[in-house]
Formats: sequence, structure tokens, C-alpha cells
Amino acid sequence: MDVIEAGFASVSEGEMEAVRLIAKQGLRAEISSAGRGTRGDIDAVLKCGASTISMIIPTSDLHIECKLRKTREQVLKATEDCVGYAKEHGLTVDLLAEDATRSDFDYLLKVFQTAIDVGVDRVTPCDTVGILTPERSFDFFSKLVDKIKIPVGVHCHNDFGMAVASTIAALGAGAQEVHATVNGLGERAGNAAIEEIVVTLRGLYNLDLNIKTQLLYSTSQLVSRLTGVHTQPNKAVVGENAFTHESGIHTQGVLANPLTYEPIAPELVGCTRRIAPGKHSGSNAIRADLANMGLKPTEDQFRDIMQRLKDLGDKGKVVMDADVLAIAETVMGLDEDKPIKLAELTFVGGNKVTSTASVRLKVYGRDVWGSAIGVGPVDAAINAVKVAIVETEPITLEQYNVKAITGGTDAMVEVVVHMRKGNRTVTAMGLREDIVKASMEAVITGMNVLKVDYNDKCKTDDVPT
Amino acid sequence: MDVIEAGFASVSEGEMEAVRLIAKQGLRAEISSAGRGTRGDIDAVLKCGASTISMIIPTSDLHIECKLRKTREQVLKATEDCVGYAKEHGLTVDLLAEDATRSDFDYLLKVFQTAIDVGVDRVTPCDTVGILTPERSFDFFSKLVDKIKIPVGVHCHNDFGMAVASTIAALGAGAQEVHATVNGLGERAGNAAIEEIVVTLRGLYNLDLNIKTQLLYSTSQLVSRLTGVHTQPNKAVVGENAFTHESGIHTQGVLANPLTYEPIAPELVGCTRRIAPGKHSGSNAIRADLANMGLKPTEDQFRDIMQRLKDLGDKGKVVMDADVLAIAETVMGLDEDKPIKLAELTFVGGNKVTSTASVRLKVYGRDVWGSAIGVGPVDAAINAVKVAIVETEPITLEQYNVKAITGGTDAMVEVVVHMRKGNRTVTAMGLREDIVKASMEAVITGMNVLKVDYNDKCKTDDVPT
Repeated sequence: MDVIEAGFASVSEGEMEAVRLIAKQGLRAEISSAGRGTRGDIDAVLKCGASTISMIIPTSDLHIECKLRKTREQVLKATEDCVGYAKEHGLTVDLLAEDATRSDFDYLLKVFQTAIDVGVDRVTPCDTVGILTPERSFDFFSKLVDKIKIPVGVHCHNDFGMAVASTIAALGAGAQEVHATVNGLGERAGNAAIEEIVVTLRGLYNLDLNIKTQLLYSTSQLVSRLTGVHTQPNKAVVGENAFTHESGIHTQGVLANPLTYEPIAPELVGCTRRIAPGKHSGSNAIRADLANMGLKPTEDQFRDIMQRLKDLGDKGKVVMDADVLAIAETVMGLDEDKPIKLAELTFVGGNKVTSTASVRLKVYGRDVWGSAIGVGPVDAAINAVKVAIVETEPITLEQYNVKAITGGTDAMVEVVVHMRKGNRTVTAMGLREDIVKASMEAVITGMNVLKVDYNDKCKTDDVPT
Repeated sequence: MDVIEAGFASVSEGEMEAVRLIAKQGLRAEISSAGRGTRGDIDAVLKCGASTISMIIPTSDLHIECKLRKTREQVLKATEDCVGYAKEHGLTVDLLAEDATRSDFDYLLKVFQTAIDVGVDRVTPCDTVGILTPERSFDFFSKLVDKIKIPVGVHCHNDFGMAVASTIAALGAGAQEVHATVNGLGERAGNAAIEEIVVTLRGLYNLDLNIKTQLLYSTSQLVSRLTGVHTQPNKAVVGENAFTHESGIHTQGVLANPLTYEPIAPELVGCTRRIAPGKHSGSNAIRADLANMGLKPTEDQFRDIMQRLKDLGDKGKVVMDADVLAIAETVMGLDEDKPIKLAELTFVGGNKVTSTASVRLKVYGRDVWGSAIGVGPVDAAINAVKVAIVETEPITLEQYNVKAITGGTDAMVEVVVHMRKGNRTVTAMGLREDIVKASMEAVITGMNVLKVDYNDKCKTDDVPT
């Protein structure tokens, strides 16, 4: 990234301190702070040590009249004063014309010209409410770039889902700087998403941006975790499903040649391909999945497994690896061999009681007991399982997700776990009204998928891992 | 909607039955089923009672060679056979040319012409891997519409985040049918999102589509709930935050005139505006929030409240309504008056134990007790609270979300609840390692915000509700 807008210095002491800390890192990026067109905001930017101000000044009549309660003339004057003041104090100035795309174009030009006369470094018309379409963006920026002889930036919002496309169109028309955010975060429906812009320029325009694209996925995950704003599974480029293939037509193609259904190589953004089992799965995908679990059904058994998976999908269920295993076990008559079963679970807790749980498990038919305390009933119950079972190779609970259906605490609770043992990962689910039981179900199911060791029933040495 | 592609009849018995049930509803939409270019798939469509087949036939060399292992000639022949067969049996046929945007254009035209010669009704080139950009989409469809004299559809995927923009561009070039999905669901990063297309055509192109836009938000929510595929908060048009304003500049503008920052009126899609408290909030927003809670701080108190809110935000916390109340109470010395406090909580459960909880609450200082069973410990605990407290007006727990941090069951659990009492909604959070305690904290905090009734301390009759 060439420029990082690190915060809005005048908002609070903490935000100013955050910008200051970032500015002090010695990053190879120019550090900017946002601020309005007021002396106070500019002083805050000067104080925080940013080299640049992203100076926000509205240019539409709606914003000037309704929000600022000023006149066009007053805003022109403020632009001259504020840009001049910031320049005199050594700041690089990027003038962000707020609501520029709903502004009178001639007036917008006048504001920019005024800023240029007092030394502004860059100007960025903001599509504050996301009303640009790609063709309007192209026209708008073409007209602007024709008149403005300093670098022009583009700043799009995503209210109509057009932010990325309009940003790309603006670049095509001569804009030189893109304002974008990780995961498209921002007010309302957010801003243009960095990862989509980078990958589009790389994948569809063959432009190398000197950006480490391999870090896009992990960066997205990090930002999602830190902000608490999750990305949807079908988010472009970095969504959980962006490189997941389910439909039979698609998995068949990808297994033959990934290019058939992968315009972006998952490795480009630091992600991995996933073939998800499901009712639309082709037989190739399910066969690969079973092989990974160490299972080699006969052709008859395989047809039966496929049929039952489709039936399961017909019931509206998302099919997990654990379901594939459960069905295969039933069909192959391996049911009795499920290594771990829950026989008994009891837990107690409260605000003056240490959460405590005991379990009785059947492990290969033998009774084993465990009890443990935990930070809550779920933790205590899982800890009790760990006490009961001595593992030869650690199983990691990589992700523990609880989805609750809107409405009340008596809704079905869906716990989905991603567990790992060595190189293998599995997904398993528990679906109960009781979160503790749902969690136990998910974890034990996942352990069963990972711990499969059918020594007697089938060889595993010739199975791909 | 004019056409509903209701499923892929040949996938499974259940999917066929689903299409059959939808076809029998007598909806005012044409009901289609997807199928590949094989007799078997066409027979399945005929069997399920759909009037139309969305017939998928690949046209790119990559798909023809790697996936089908056929030649261009064979695919031409199959097109002629299959379209002819489907037409002879009375189906309306929409030919979906798979991977059309990576196909040799002349060959694509030849496939379409072959299909036209045997009576195909519509043709749809599919941008199967989402590589169209709006300008390429415009060019592609302009060339195509120039040659093809029957209706042409557009079917875009969202791998680069361009699906909606490319769809709109195709319409501009003369395409007449749009393939789109609610919430943009679909393989990988999904397909073009219906709600974004509809609102863009309405809001940016002034086209009335005869679609009840007021149902877009609830439809999105329904699909999200039924599929388990959530929409991200910053999803355009239907995301949780699409009509939420936090930054001070924005809330100040919206409170003066919603048009300043709302290109889409929330009512258009059946949603409502939300002003979220936060460290970027301006004083106007917080003042309105406090008034809603029945609190009227002095100017000195108000400045103190603002400062503390910013401090809280600086710590990286998402500021909830409940935090605003807590801070205001502290500043205004109303702390002692918190109506409901949790004194004691005990719960027990397990797979052979009915989940049971008891609580002792301090309600305006008086001890009240309640005990209840539930479907799990959280439900039992909340039920016990309901037993303990006789409510004059029901408080609804509208949303109950649990976010668990990746890694294990001992992570901090963040429970966020949206609660409603009459017209007022509040958000409150509980943050504990124990999900039961976190849930109790969130719910009791939310009840305290909603039940505020400071009879002695301040009048409420002149407060806006």
C-alpha cells in the first residue's frame, strides 16, 4: 500500500494516539489522517505526526446547505484557508470532495482549482452515497482528469454493489489513486474492497501492483476477527466459499482441470481449494473424500452412499465430512466400530459455582470416565472428554462456531467445528437445542472422523492422505 | 420474478419433487428446471412438470475438452439433438452456454444459431467464472445481440466482485433476461445478487420492475436463515449495516436530512434506519440515543459522557446502546437505580438431566427468585429470569448471537442480543468465557436499558419515544 489513512485524529485522544503509533512505525507507506476542513481538525493531524491529511470538504449543495448550513462561497473560502494552512504547516494534502458525484460539476472544479492554487497535492472526488455506475464513473473521471492536472483519486461507496466496478472504471479514465478498505468495510454497505480491486487488476487487467497477494486472505481474516465484522461465505476473493466447489458439474471440472471453474488460483490470495460434499456433488468428489477418510467402498456400496447423501441434501441439510463418514459407515457395516460414543454427560455451573462436568464415554466399547472443570459448561464438558481419552496425536479444535436462529434461546443451536489432526481437517456439526450437548456432539463426531483406524476392516497404507 | 429456476431435476428424487411442488403452485412465474444437454436430464425436467428447461451446454474449448472430453462438433450435434428433443416434448428452452465468455465467439454464435434453427426460445451466455468487467460485458452483449434475433439472457458470477455491474452493463447492451439469486448465493463467490440489481435499476436508472421492493429485506433474511449462508453486515442493500450510520459526520447529516447519506430509502427495501453509537458518533446522535432512554444529562454531564464513550471506542470496543446507558448512569449518578441485578445463578444439565436453573435477582433492591427448566442451560437460565420478573409489557429477544473466537471452548464468548419493547430496540452484550453467564449478562443488561423507569430522578413524559 502506498498510503494508509490511519484514522481520524480529531475524533478522540485514543484515535490520535493510534495514528501517532502507526506514523512512528517507519512503514514504507505514506501515513495520512482524515480531518474536516477546520483549523481544529488540521491541528489534530499535525499533532499526531501523520505526513498527510485526507481533508474532507463537502461540495454538493445538499451537504453544504443541510449539513454545514453554509453557502458555496463559504466553502470555497474554507477550502482556500484550510488547504493553505495545512500546506504552510508542511502537510501533504489530499482534498476529499464529499458527495462530489452529486455536486454541480463546475462548482466542484472551482473547489479543486481553488485548492490547487494554494498547493493541494491530490484531489479525490468522493462517491459518498455510491451512486456511480461504471459507465458514469468513466465519464465523470474522464471529464475531471481532462481539467485537473494533479493526481486524482477515486473513493467509492458500495450502496448499490458498484464500488469495485466503478473504482476500476475510474482508473481506466485516468484516476491515479484508489481509496479502498479490507473486506470493503466502511459506513453502511461499506467502501470498495481492496482485495477485489487488487485481484481484478491482476487477474483481468494483467497489472502487477507490487502487493503481496498471498497475504490477502489472511489479512481479510485478521481484519474480520479484530473488527468483529464477518465476511459472508460468498464474498468475492476472500469468502469462505470463494474457492469451494460443490455442484457435481463444477467438481468434475475442477478435478479434471482447476481452470474450468477457477478464474483465480486460490494460492494467489493465500487460500486453498475445497471440494465440499453435498447433494449436487459428483461421484468423483465423494470418492476422493472417502479415500481421505481411509474408506474404500465397493461399487455397490458407493452407489448406495451417493444415494443417501442426495437424500440427506434433499432434506435441506448442509452435508459435512462427518455426514459422509456416517453414511459410509452405515452402508459399509462399520457402524459398530465408531471409536468414541457419549454415554453420559452431566454438568453444573453458575455465577458462584465452578463449571464442572463429568462424562462417561464408550471407547471401542470400553467405559472410560473423565471429569473436569472449565471456564463454562461447554469448556468443562470438552475438557472432561480430553481427560477421558488419552490421545496419541493431538487433535486441534481449530474453529468453534455457534449459529443461533433468531427468536429465542430455545431455538436449535448449530455448532460447527473444524478440527485438525496433522494434515487432515474435518468439519463436523452438532445440532441440538442445548449448546453443551450440541458442542459435545460436534466434537465427538469430529474426533471420530479424525481418529478412524479400521485396522481390521481395511488397509490404510495405500490410501492417499 | 418472471422466471424461477426451481432446481436441478436430475440431481435427486428430492430435488425433482421440490421442482414439481413449486411448478404445481400456480405461481405467476414461469417455472424452469436446470439440466445438462443429455436425454436423461431432459427427461427428468419433463417428469417434474416444469414448463422450461435451463439447458446447460459448455461452449469453451477448456470445458469441452477437459470436462466433457468431447469435440466442438460433438457439442454442436448434442445441442441440435437436445434442444430439438426438448422442443418436441413441449418445453420452453433457455440454452445456457457454459463458460461462454471464454469461448471462441464464432463458435458460440454457431452453437446459438444451431439451437435457434431447432426452435430454442432464449439463449444465455454464462460468465461462468466471473471474468466479465462492465465494459467487456457491454461489448460482448452488443456484439451478440447484434447477431442473435431471439431474447438473450445474462448470467454472471461474482469471483471478482463484478457480477452486478456486468449484469447491468449487459442490459444496457440489449440483454433481456437476468439470472440472479437472492443474496448473491451460488457456487464459489456466488452469482449476481437480485436485490442489488433491482435497487440499482430502480434507484440509478429509474426503472420500475414490477417487483415488490419492500419485501427484499425480509426475503434476504428468510433465505439467509433457511440456507444458513449469512449476509455480511456491509452487504449492499440488505446487509445489517446497509442503513446504519455511525460516524459523526454521517449521523449529523442524516439527522439533518436523510438524503445526505442515504441513496436508498430504507423503507424501499423494507428495512429501517439505525443510528449506531460509537466513538465516531457526533453529539447529536448520542443526545438522541440518551433521550430515547429517558435520560437528560446536563451539558457538563453530556460532555463527560461523550468523552467516556470515545475512550471506550478507543479501547477497540463496539459501543452498544447498553454501554451508552451504563456510562450515562455512572456520570449522572444513577448507578444505584439499575432496576435488575443478578445476585445468584445456578444451573445443571446433561444428556440424562433436564436442564434446570435458578436465579436470585435484585429488582430495585428487593430479592426475587425464579427457577425453570429449559431445552439447555441458557434457555433454563433465561426462563428463570422470566419467572422471577413479572413484566408489564413483553420484552422480545429478537436476535441472540454468539460469537466465539477461533481456537477453543475456553475463549471469551461474546453474546449480542437485540431486544425489543414496543417500538424501542436495544442492543446489549455479554462477554464471558461461560456462555450461560454471558447470555444472562446480555439479557439482563438489555432488560435494564429497556425497562428504565426513573420515576423519581427525571420526568419521562416529555421525552421522545
